[in-house]
Amino acid sequence: MFLKNAWYVIAWGEEVGRAILARTVCNESIVVYRTEGGKVAALENACCHRQLPLAMGKLVGDNLQCGYHGLTFDPTGRCVAVPGQSTIPPEAGVRRYPVVEKYRMVWVWLGAPEQADEAKIPHLDRLANPDWVGKTGQQFHLHCNYELLNDNLMDLGHETFVHITSIGSEEVVAAHIKTTRDENAVRVERWMPDHDPAPFWKSAIKLAAQYDGHVDRWQQIEFIPPCNYILHVGVAPVGTGARQGDKSRGIEGCVISINTPETDHTCWQFWTFMRNFQTDQRDVDEKIGQAVHDLLSEDVLILNEQQKNLLARKNIRKVDIGHDAGGIQARRLIQRRLEEEGTLA
Amino acid sequence: MFLKNAWYVIAWGEEVGRAILARTVCNESIVVYRTEGGKVAALENACCHRQLPLAMGKLVGDNLQCGYHGLTFDPTGRCVAVPGQSTIPPEAGVRRYPVVEKYRMVWVWLGAPEQADEAKIPHLDRLANPDWVGKTGQQFHLHCNYELLNDNLMDLGHETFVHITSIGSEEVVAAHIKTTRDENAVRVERWMPDHDPAPFWKSAIKLAAQYDGHVDRWQQIEFIPPCNYILHVGVAPVGTGARQGDKSRGIEGCVISINTPETDHTCWQFWTFMRNFQTDQRDVDEKIGQAVHDLLSEDVLILNEQQKNLLARKNIRKVDIGHDAGGIQARRLIQRRLEEEGTLA
Amino acid sequence: MFLKNAWYVIAWGEEVGRAILARTVCNESIVVYRTEGGKVAALENACCHRQLPLAMGKLVGDNLQCGYHGLTFDPTGRCVAVPGQSTIPPEAGVRRYPVVEKYRMVWVWLGAPEQADEAKIPHLDRLANPDWVGKTGQQFHLHCNYELLNDNLMDLGHETFVHITSIGSEEVVAAHIKTTRDENAVRVERWMPDHDPAPFWKSAIKLAAQYDGHVDRWQQIEFIPPCNYILHVGVAPVGTGARQGDKSRGIEGCVISINTPETDHTCWQFWTFMRNFQTDQRDVDEKIGQAVHDLLSEDVLILNEQQKNLLARKNIRKVDIGHDAGGIQARRLIQRRLEEEGTLA
Repeated sequence: MFLKNAWYVIAWGEEVGRAILARTVCNESIVVYRTEGGKVAALENACCHRQLPLAMGKLVGDNLQCGYHGLTFDPTGRCVAVPGQSTIPPEAGVRRYPVVEKYRMVWVWLGAPEQADEAKIPHLDRLANPDWVGKTGQQFHLHCNYELLNDNLMDLGHETFVHITSIGSEEVVAAHIKTTRDENAVRVERWMPDHDPAPFWKSAIKLAAQYDGHVDRWQQIEFIPPCNYILHVGVAPVGTGARQGDKSRGIEGCVISINTPETDHTCWQFWTFMRNFQTDQRDVDEKIGQAVHDLLSEDVLILNEQQKNLLARKNIRKVDIGHDAGGIQARRLIQRRLEEEGTLA
Repeated sequence: MFLKNAWYVIAWGEEVGRAILARTVCNESIVVYRTEGGKVAALENACCHRQLPLAMGKLVGDNLQCGYHGLTFDPTGRCVAVPGQSTIPPEAGVRRYPVVEKYRMVWVWLGAPEQADEAKIPHLDRLANPDWVGKTGQQFHLHCNYELLNDNLMDLGHETFVHITSIGSEEVVAAHIKTTRDENAVRVERWMPDHDPAPFWKSAIKLAAQYDGHVDRWQQIEFIPPCNYILHVGVAPVGTGARQGDKSRGIEGCVISINTPETDHTCWQFWTFMRNFQTDQRDVDEKIGQAVHDLLSEDVLILNEQQKNLLARKNIRKVDIGHDAGGIQARRLIQRRLEEEGTLA
Repeated sequence: MFLKNAWYVIAWGEEVGRAILARTVCNESIVVYRTEGGKVAALENACCHRQLPLAMGKLVGDNLQCGYHGLTFDPTGRCVAVPGQSTIPPEAGVRRYPVVEKYRMVWVWLGAPEQADEAKIPHLDRLANPDWVGKTGQQFHLHCNYELLNDNLMDLGHETFVHITSIGSEEVVAAHIKTTRDENAVRVERWMPDHDPAPFWKSAIKLAAQYDGHVDRWQQIEFIPPCNYILHVGVAPVGTGARQGDKSRGIEGCVISINTPETDHTCWQFWTFMRNFQTDQRDVDEKIGQAVHDLLSEDVLILNEQQKNLLARKNIRKVDIGHDAGGIQARRLIQRRLEEEGTLA
């Protein structure tokens, strides 16, 4: 029940090199590697001969040689050698996946190759903008369906309970949320005016050495199906015009989280926190990266246990509350796309 | 296939406090905790909102607050708060289980609440009698269906093979057993006259410093469905009238074992050994508790392997022998109750 | 889907003694032990009473006593004692398996006992010939179906890729193979004339101190269903007549591999490497035994991963190549036998 006609992040670009990396996306095991020219290739992780994982093979130039009988495949999946014989069976070959490296991430397309339009990769401008910096390469492996992670990120009301020592405060759960949806995205916005900032923001303000006292705080979520999540956050001194559009007096961050399904009950979270302050201080990357790592780890614990309980229980009743609006809209958008693909027809 | 209209021990009273304890009974995951007033509450271990285990939440006064979005439930399972909104959805709430603390144990009722009659808790008089002492709080977690543990305890002929270094001897397996059943209980009785006592009893006699030489020994079992087991045991100097009803010259013990089903293939054994001798010496609690712990551990090994073999094998033939009489009657009584409940109708 | 009317090696003879050994063959758990007279008995590993594994029991003379209630079985599986009663239920008893010790191995028959003809045990002459020596007792436990191990051994073209540091070389994969099949066996033969020997053979030649330079090398496989494998290998100085039938100038080895199915997705490999050179030097046993152990371990890694991939993937396409001829014939022979047995009828 996964969308096939979609780009999925399989890895950070920095993870992929001349060592073969195997990872499962939507129940499909895929190997990725770089050619000598630096381009990324993505092939199915099973030799067409006797199904040894190709991850156990080795690279010979730009080609991948199986570690069992030496069948060799080029980056398009074509079989170019069968040791011990001069002819190559016409049906020999492995599936290749359309693959694009963009925004420091490697994206694979699981649907029909002819529909693999690079323009469909969601815009992650913060990762392309030199005025914004942050540590990349971070990831979590979660034991839950990726939609539970979507839900979690769409509903930030949970911050008050799960992340009370960092980004949570009474203001978050109490704030009014505005949820909108169009054909391609769900947006959730929340403003928390005039309050003593939560510990994470207090630390960030201290790092940026800008101001004391109360702040106006905002969260602006953009969700693009099936699993792409962009969260613009920030604080500014009270009443300095942030809500009216002038965030120049504040400090801003952007959480990007790509929630790639691995199997029905596991997923990957490729994440980063980009910022537009103290951009020349690399140690701030580490400090903020660690803080975000720690708070996202709190969600991992929650989501793993939530999934276990969902699998263990029958006759589940599910009561919705107001904060669920964004997550419910995200699920509807995915559902509609599945219907369009005919997966659910 | 578990009896619902029955009281099951979920924990020793001493295990339950202001920390939330989660345990599964008959495939239902339940949390128990004490209110500030000391009463025990028992709720289903899943928030009605998004099914996070409530064991991951925290107590706020007498109420339980979910660790994900802060929904809060009172000890009856009623939802009393949904953070971020003023109205509570009418369907919000979690199942509460009737719960009673009695005989130092916490009992939950899994069936219809209106049938949860405290008078149906089996009588464990030895745990209420100040003339009897013993260490409580012990338990084993077994990887077998609870009826295998029932069988084991109903047939003490196995002592001669499994517990030969402690309570087993040729006399046990050779003794005649008398098995009776009424609507509510199965009883098995065995007398082993005039023999050199088994090691466990030799040690007990030494602790109680009473006599040397041969003894008359008895075992009197009472089983109350579905999993409540009381074993009266003892030895007395040969021919001092124990069998005729005067046990005053002997030393007596009472094993209580509550064999609560956890899942289809696992169970809990909440057990104690109570005694009426050396009642003022607490170190005897430890010595005898350890001895009984060690010999019951021998059964755990047996039962875990028996269950594995039963699950692994097809076309099992099961030959009954004379010693099985008690266990077979216990199974019949459970079966009849299941039929009455309609579970098997 | 296993052949029943076949002899399967359950253990090396040296593994079986007065301790009870339990092992699973074709999904049947079996215990083997030696009587006081040294004969091997093989019984089903479950007491007929309450299915405790008999491996948890103990030997009493030639009989096996269950560790739970003491039921006792003789080497034919007949129940000879039920403690606590004088009569033995007529249906009491456990299944006995026809068992033969031959070629230092213990063979059990899983089919109808009256068809258990010892003459059907495959001829492993090298293990009966005093001119050949080698270390026995080695085994691997693999997480793959036994036919994957058969395939692996029938197709030695993989040596060039899996065992390149020991027995693999370009000559192996490039050599022409001759495959023949009759009703009872598949044979695969390969000659690799005039080449610089692979590292394993270089070391063997050095141990045998016979000659330098190029060699003619051969591999002659005999496969007898369902899982018996004999591989005659050797090298001789170039052009000294080995291929014409005179191997006297060469050094010869024989790999015997019995690939006993354990479960649908696991198997045992009982193996040895016998040789006809340096037969009086026992340290050569260890050196060559270790070398073969190390290279077979490389196959274990491959086969375990191959099996995982086969189980994880749907819609598997399987392209055959020339080297598969022997393995495909072996599978056909097994398939035909299964049809004869009616398992697949």
